[in-house]
Amino acid sequence: MAQTAEQAAQRARVTIGDSEFDRDTAVTLREDGVYDAELSAGWTILEAVNGGYLLAMLGRALGEALPHPDPFSVSAHYLTASVPGPAVIRTQVARVGRTLSTGQASLFQFAPDGTEIERIRVVGTYGDLDGLSDEVRTSARPPAIPPLERCLGPSDGPVPLAGGSAITERLDIRIDPATVGWAVGAPSGKGEMRGWFGLADGRDADPLSLLLAVDALPPTSFELGLKGWTPTIELTAHIRCRPAPGPLRVSITTRNLAGGFLEEDADVWDSADRLVAQSRQLARAPRG
Amino acid sequence: MAQTAEQAAQRARVTIGDSEFDRDTAVTLREDGVYDAELSAGWTILEAVNGGYLLAMLGRALGEALPHPDPFSVSAHYLTASVPGPAVIRTQVARVGRTLSTGQASLFQFAPDGTEIERIRVVGTYGDLDGLSDEVRTSARPPAIPPLERCLGPSDGPVPLAGGSAITERLDIRIDPATVGWAVGAPSGKGEMRGWFGLADGRDADPLSLLLAVDALPPTSFELGLKGWTPTIELTAHIRCRPAPGPLRVSITTRNLAGGFLEEDADVWDSADRLVAQSRQLARAPRG
Repeated sequence: MAQTAEQAAQRARVTIGDSEFDRDTAVTLREDGVYDAELSAGWTILEAVNGGYLLAMLGRALGEALPHPDPFSVSAHYLTASVPGPAVIRTQVARVGRTLSTGQASLFQFAPDGTEIERIRVVGTYGDLDGLSDEVRTSARPPAIPPLERCLGPSDGPVPLAGGSAITERLDIRIDPATVGWAVGAPSGKGEMRGWFGLADGRDADPLSLLLAVDALPPTSFELGLKGWTPTIELTAHIRCRPAPGPLRVSITTRNLAGGFLEEDADVWDSADRLVAQSRQLARAPRG
Repeated sequence: MAQTAEQAAQRARVTIGDSEFDRDTAVTLREDGVYDAELSAGWTILEAVNGGYLLAMLGRALGEALPHPDPFSVSAHYLTASVPGPAVIRTQVARVGRTLSTGQASLFQFAPDGTEIERIRVVGTYGDLDGLSDEVRTSARPPAIPPLERCLGPSDGPVPLAGGSAITERLDIRIDPATVGWAVGAPSGKGEMRGWFGLADGRDADPLSLLLAVDALPPTSFELGLKGWTPTIELTAHIRCRPAPGPLRVSITTRNLAGGFLEEDADVWDSADRLVAQSRQLARAPRG
């Protein structure tokens, strides 16, 4: 999308640690292992708080609670629908090792009488990405996505790419034209969605924003011709290396829609052509 | 492998619920949510207790603790190495819904002074596979594996398919000849392993034995030319439908070996050509 002068200026000064994403995923230590948080209305799709945004917030809390800084594998089970507003995250350390440590975090919100309602339960194993060897032996190749300027964003003509949702203002997502058939009533029938991913204010990617990136594209179910919500049951993300600066490429794939459920696999590639994150989620298929 | 008359007779009488696998994954209620168990030495590879066997036992405990019977998505973080002998499984119910419920289970063993040492922490979401619609829209296809009689088992000549390990006597695994190069010093260099999977006593597959099946083949790292142990950090399995009777086909794939870690994706297909389970694990790569 075209940048305003204001946006361009903002891009120049936003850094990891000092950006909207960082402020909106901030957690405040209340007592040992317990963090207060505020779910921002800025990361909602229609009424729902984005699951990747929530995972990033939980990932931040777990990173504070554990001695190792970076999420290596984070498994989240989504229990009830989160809403914008106050939340509390309760963490617990399961094991501390030399190179890896594992802990648990649950995000709760509050019933009118103050009772805590659990939204998400996460178990995560953390390590230090900077401590990994540089050895790469991989058969995976980056997805074939056209250059960013040939992909489509919310402001490109009539294509309503989740238009009207607050989160679209915070993300800079450009979808591969080959996977936007759904937006003009002609879904491909293939369970594929691909695109470029960045934060709208120009903040570069880090391991926490990768937890957002794996669940930020429109769902593959749209290209399968299904309309409506695809609520995540469970999502596990592996962060495989620290992403280089620059836009990410995200490819999501569904191979099996059966019995009312589907899996969605995401691969995230950085500007250095490295596979920086992989995720798989199980979701309920829309009834449409 | 050739069946003895005794094996053939045994096959005829072993049923789900009354088999070695069922006895060796049994859990005994000690008190509300707490189960005693015995890790059998029969499911070890060299010294290590197989991670899929442990996952099946935890899956059984969680199925007893939750109101829904079948694992839909089970995420396990492996903390410390399990050993044959007594264990206790502590479960907790996180949420009970109409169609799905979620809980947590940890398996502990004991230090010489009796202190509990956590081995594995699992969060699982359960449902009722029999309650799912029959609708299948899938692009996934069963792996191209030669007929069972043309695949290779432990007794086929010099190929030492995990020979000498107790678990080989309990499994009936026949590897696709195209993915056994490692066994004769000629690994393919591709991160692929495929084969037929069954229990040696002829017990048919069920959702719990699928949790074993996703982590039972030799690791893909062997075909990548690496020797030695590939310890699982985290494994998440999705059970997508109840498997039909008959042998399973299992395909495992690694696309990214980087920084000393690799992912292993498993697809499990039943005799009716349905994708019955999908899993992904993050593991440490062998140093070899």
